[in-house]
Amino acid sequence: MKRKITLKQIAKELDVSISTVSKSLKDSPEISEDTKLKIQAFARMYNYKPNNIALSLKNRKTKTIGIIIPEIVHHFFATVISGIEQVANENGYNVIICLSDESFDKEVINMEMLANGSIDGFIMSLSKETQLKADYHHITEAINQGMPVVMFDRVTNDILCDKVIIDDKKAAYDAVQDLIDKGMKKIALVSTVDYVSVGKLRTDGYEKALLDNDIPFNKNLIIKVEDMDHCGEAIEKLLLDRAIDAVFAVNELFAVIAIKAAHKMGLNVPEDLSVVAFTDGIISQFSTPTITTVSQDGIKMGRKAAAMLIDRLQKEEAEEEHEEHEEHYRTEVIETHLIKRDSTK
Amino acid sequence: MKRKITLKQIAKELDVSISTVSKSLKDSPEISEDTKLKIQAFARMYNYKPNNIALSLKNRKTKTIGIIIPEIVHHFFATVISGIEQVANENGYNVIICLSDESFDKEVINMEMLANGSIDGFIMSLSKETQLKADYHHITEAINQGMPVVMFDRVTNDILCDKVIIDDKKAAYDAVQDLIDKGMKKIALVSTVDYVSVGKLRTDGYEKALLDNDIPFNKNLIIKVEDMDHCGEAIEKLLLDRAIDAVFAVNELFAVIAIKAAHKMGLNVPEDLSVVAFTDGIISQFSTPTITTVSQDGIKMGRKAAAMLIDRLQKEEAEEEHEEHEEHYRTEVIETHLIKRDSTK
Repeated sequence: MKRKITLKQIAKELDVSISTVSKSLKDSPEISEDTKLKIQAFARMYNYKPNNIALSLKNRKTKTIGIIIPEIVHHFFATVISGIEQVANENGYNVIICLSDESFDKEVINMEMLANGSIDGFIMSLSKETQLKADYHHITEAINQGMPVVMFDRVTNDILCDKVIIDDKKAAYDAVQDLIDKGMKKIALVSTVDYVSVGKLRTDGYEKALLDNDIPFNKNLIIKVEDMDHCGEAIEKLLLDRAIDAVFAVNELFAVIAIKAAHKMGLNVPEDLSVVAFTDGIISQFSTPTITTVSQDGIKMGRKAAAMLIDRLQKEEAEEEHEEHEEHYRTEVIETHLIKRDSTK
Repeated sequence: MKRKITLKQIAKELDVSISTVSKSLKDSPEISEDTKLKIQAFARMYNYKPNNIALSLKNRKTKTIGIIIPEIVHHFFATVISGIEQVANENGYNVIICLSDESFDKEVINMEMLANGSIDGFIMSLSKETQLKADYHHITEAINQGMPVVMFDRVTNDILCDKVIIDDKKAAYDAVQDLIDKGMKKIALVSTVDYVSVGKLRTDGYEKALLDNDIPFNKNLIIKVEDMDHCGEAIEKLLLDRAIDAVFAVNELFAVIAIKAAHKMGLNVPEDLSVVAFTDGIISQFSTPTITTVSQDGIKMGRKAAAMLIDRLQKEEAEEEHEEHEEHYRTEVIETHLIKRDSTK
């Protein structure tokens, strides 16, 4: 049986990274000549077939959209997919979903697989590892070969393409300002590590709101959660010292953990502690107390991303006929607002 | 630009169902000769290319698994996908996910799309509409063409293939028996409509537990939820009449709605009302009170389904070489148990 050799197999055989193989086969100046020659020779020997996306695009449209998201056990991403599905189906497109599991290699492999004639364009949100490495060559490559990409939520300025985001900094600012308006001063931030773009922007918004209200910025009130299991302990410690009267959490799971920690210490929410979170997921609506959140309308985000991609695909079709080319990328900002529930006064 | 015509386009052009087109092209005796001739002629005219799966299988392995699930905004399906991803990645397989959105047509279209050379085999859970229609020709067809299928959770006896299920009837029986052991007699059931296979089996288990304990089966204590929006009202009505002392819900969302309804009427859970649910999702762990649930280990189910599919794909490879054929399908039953939390005494 004859099998096509993949980037992954070449990487494994030669004990180099997938990124190195991919760049070598594109003759990237980032890779040493020696390495490139070795990898290119190996690929030729095993008859590696690079994707000829541009060619396949001219020959047939698949009427299928490929989605690559970091994880699926996450209500926000699930709602974005629902939004994409709605607009895709309204326009006669199918949808295929792949998960990067927050892994750079999986993101590269999945893009290679889907770009190989299965889809017309990508809608994607970057994996944590991709953001950490800041290596986006696989995305540039897809775009250069004529495969449009729309990024949402976790985006990067390093890639020119259509994007759908919320104004994370402003939304965080507004949520924290609301707490300050109610007399809170000792506001803890429970966030992700900084290389996750949205975590960083929300942290910036939190900091700006404090400074604009002449509240000193205190690094000790910031918990950066790398590992969910230790998040509860860190919050309990802050509560034990009675150092805080509010928690601003960048997602609802962190908020629920904060509420559980408060209950465990005999504190009441919102009487003794106010809690506000990002993401209007299903937990916020069903927890007791219900949680005040910054709405982050995943359905709307998904609908907008799909509309932008389909718009671009249809323009390309028209351009093929008229031999015109125009690159004009947009970044759409989805409005957010604070949904007030029972976890704040 | 030349485009391949799809089943969907043929169906639309001729104003017939996708199922009719699909069956006509397979010369099914279920379809009238007139209709078949018309559809076959149209397909020939537009150069319809049926998938030649067996051929594509012999020529190349994609090392990709296709998953088709009814919906994604559902923690259980998300955990099954995580389990599938784990075992797939351990064995060097990629995973592609498509959603049927509970629609028969979308299930058929997605299977056609993926079977078209993108994947080696399917892991799927049936859409509600497919179960209602009891039309499984698209699945039979995939299997007949040499594309293995593993079904999980929502399965059917009408298809011979590998399956992964939990013993829904026994699990429901055990949960209800536990309520009875604690002195509950007026136990309401909040279930789905009957054509959803797992809803039916759980209802059977509930009924059997009552009868085995000489508790009269009362149809008025059963709420069959077709539409989530009216679920709360129906539960409130039962609570208002003080007709029940426990609720057994076939999923955690129904359970949360029952708890909210109880709180609204000034009743305490579990003092005035015990609540038990199926599905060990994220809501059960984070709601107040936390909810006693029948564990339905999605990760384990996904891992098992992936292992069965990969096992079959590897056997097929071996058989191609040895020219042997063996069809021996297994149904694996994943163990469940009751996770006791605060919503029951």
